[in-house]
Amino acid sequence: MVPPLDAETIAIGTELLIGGRSDSNSLFLADELGKLGIAVRFKSVVGDERRDIVTAIHTAVTRAQVIIMTGGLGPTVDDCTREAVARATGHRLGRRKEALEGMTARLAQWGRIPNTAQLRQGMIPSGATVLNNPVGSAPGFCLTWKKALIISLPGVPREMEEMMRQEVLPLLRAESGAAGWSPREPIVRQVFHTFGLAEADVDAKLKGLIPKGAPVDLGMLASPMGVLVSLTTKGNQSTPEKNRDLLEELTNDVRSRLSDWLFAEGRDTMEEVVGRELSKQGLMLAVAESCTGGLIGHRLTQVAGSSAYVDRGAVCYSNRAKTEMLGVPAELIAHNGAVSKEVAAAMACGIRQRANVSVGLSVTGIAGPGGGTETKPVGLVYIGLDDGTGQPITQEFRFHGDRNVIKQRSSQAALDLLRRWLLGKASR
Amino acid sequence: MVPPLDAETIAIGTELLIGGRSDSNSLFLADELGKLGIAVRFKSVVGDERRDIVTAIHTAVTRAQVIIMTGGLGPTVDDCTREAVARATGHRLGRRKEALEGMTARLAQWGRIPNTAQLRQGMIPSGATVLNNPVGSAPGFCLTWKKALIISLPGVPREMEEMMRQEVLPLLRAESGAAGWSPREPIVRQVFHTFGLAEADVDAKLKGLIPKGAPVDLGMLASPMGVLVSLTTKGNQSTPEKNRDLLEELTNDVRSRLSDWLFAEGRDTMEEVVGRELSKQGLMLAVAESCTGGLIGHRLTQVAGSSAYVDRGAVCYSNRAKTEMLGVPAELIAHNGAVSKEVAAAMACGIRQRANVSVGLSVTGIAGPGGGTETKPVGLVYIGLDDGTGQPITQEFRFHGDRNVIKQRSSQAALDLLRRWLLGKASR
Repeated sequence: MVPPLDAETIAIGTELLIGGRSDSNSLFLADELGKLGIAVRFKSVVGDERRDIVTAIHTAVTRAQVIIMTGGLGPTVDDCTREAVARATGHRLGRRKEALEGMTARLAQWGRIPNTAQLRQGMIPSGATVLNNPVGSAPGFCLTWKKALIISLPGVPREMEEMMRQEVLPLLRAESGAAGWSPREPIVRQVFHTFGLAEADVDAKLKGLIPKGAPVDLGMLASPMGVLVSLTTKGNQSTPEKNRDLLEELTNDVRSRLSDWLFAEGRDTMEEVVGRELSKQGLMLAVAESCTGGLIGHRLTQVAGSSAYVDRGAVCYSNRAKTEMLGVPAELIAHNGAVSKEVAAAMACGIRQRANVSVGLSVTGIAGPGGGTETKPVGLVYIGLDDGTGQPITQEFRFHGDRNVIKQRSSQAALDLLRRWLLGKASR
Repeated sequence: MVPPLDAETIAIGTELLIGGRSDSNSLFLADELGKLGIAVRFKSVVGDERRDIVTAIHTAVTRAQVIIMTGGLGPTVDDCTREAVARATGHRLGRRKEALEGMTARLAQWGRIPNTAQLRQGMIPSGATVLNNPVGSAPGFCLTWKKALIISLPGVPREMEEMMRQEVLPLLRAESGAAGWSPREPIVRQVFHTFGLAEADVDAKLKGLIPKGAPVDLGMLASPMGVLVSLTTKGNQSTPEKNRDLLEELTNDVRSRLSDWLFAEGRDTMEEVVGRELSKQGLMLAVAESCTGGLIGHRLTQVAGSSAYVDRGAVCYSNRAKTEMLGVPAELIAHNGAVSKEVAAAMACGIRQRANVSVGLSVTGIAGPGGGTETKPVGLVYIGLDDGTGQPITQEFRFHGDRNVIKQRSSQAALDLLRRWLLGKASR
């Protein structure tokens, strides 16, 4: 049996280590490599320290056959990936013609000539193949050392992604044939997004789903946006068709077990799901937001083409704004409080009528940390939906978490109510 | 000289490896450890595979003295951190009374009793100290092996953070005394946030800032929100006071070089900066958004207490909404187009007047990918600000990037104009 092909990604940059930034490149890399049947088993992050990059490379070659490094290829002095790879693998750095030419051509397009610092970007370890950067100035490179393919790419996501597509993936496909590597069966992954159930409840619903010993992993991850469930095939199996059938069967089983709580699959988002359904039904939406402050509008308009079904939104932070923008009677607010199901209903109805659209959606709540009372604590949120039938739908939630979490959950709850209404499944 | 104390974080979870999720815990950990003078030099991410977690532990002990693992402590079968630590260090797992008691007490508060799966969470490697989880059900633990302190915490950020504060940081302070560890001088880091300059321009402004050989690293990171600059002292120096003086001097130098482009320092955000200034000046704000779809309102209301200065927002996605909500004349839109400086000015003026507040801020643009023309391409964005002087300020931008990047940049540009206006530095 041919040994499986494992990958490790190494993200380089002190900013990624201590600077409040996450490394997002490795997620893209894992996806793309997975399609080739190459599993990312380790991800590492190191700062801009040559000795630490060297250590990371030496560790990676002991446990991975494909090593993709991102970052540290820029023109500044703290960009030391080139030096680190040379040092780690015992190659010398040298100025490489094809690297300089690509960079010069790219800069020329922007009407610039390379300065001394940028010329450093043309230094490539001996024996390495230069990888052209069609988007930016820093070239990448790859070389084989200790039976591992070490690939070095810039850290700028747009440049890294384009170079993966144009240079690295074709190379990996070719190499895997030439070197006698036998990539595993592609790792297939099904992702399911749920809202409205706690992780423990999702777990209970999925109990006994995976037959004992079946080559599929079940994953679960809770966030303010809901619980994500994933099924991932284990690569390198001898019976790929059987696995695919099994995954299909399990996917159907998950769908039926999660039923209405399942709002999207794969890379689909809640806002795309409701957007598609609004389009399909030819409906226009207007939103009235208090505690979410514009987040629902922002999310809806993340979808290209959303102007076809989003007419407007009103962010009514003050009580006066609720009355002036939506016609919510001041007495209703005075009597029930701004955070109440009555005001949520009046806001949804008000925005629907004023915008003259099919459906109005509203949120009012206490995002905290201040503003809570014993009877109306932080996290109390009301959602409203009005479709002109004279019977607005309202829902009460008591969310936990900080201000941001409460805003996120509130926006998700509102969009989920809209989704259920669009599917004819919202209970009044 | 006492050897420096280095840390490695290991985030565990297949979701973090391939699931489109970044590991945010390690950023918090790096911050907190840095305050104790412990540098995170490596971050690792591994999936829920026992053998991979074992490998990660074995690698970490060769290069770090403090190892903090997050995740894999839940009740489900794929949570195997407990088993992996036991296996890696040669300890046996056993049910531990204090772990079970803490968990039972916590669940009792929620009116539940532990089920069989949750009881797995009470299994702790022999010789390890149990770390109480005051927020969730899964206890953590720590043990010393091969001169490294291995700490295992849950992956849920809220639980991990609370356990760091209540359990781990006091322990590290105590241990560092008892074990004769001499933590380095705290790593001090100054972060500067700029908007409006390209990375190359920031680089040029900061040229020659750091004296040759000075124990301070200069970092730079570009994002749609601007260019972040950081100064980080290198720990373990023999002259801490001198370093502090140097950092202070460099900080002042950076401030004067970046001048008005510097909008915030440290963990401060643009929305906090403008919020504080609005509060201080006793001004109320209203916002009219087209292409940002609510993002500006969302960002402003991320700040606790923002209801004191945010009155309302109008998300006017359709032309009709611009006319009805803001009184922008339909002829003005017909004549200039919805994406024009005239409409931006009318939107800012309209929202200010209707809300009867001190200042109105507006954005109109083409976020794409559709909707662009030769004269008005995707990325063309107009910002408007009206303060009732009869002289609205407008700015034109031509942003690059995808829909989300254009929305982000537009929101940042609008808030930056507001900031400059608040400081009396906006050019009309």
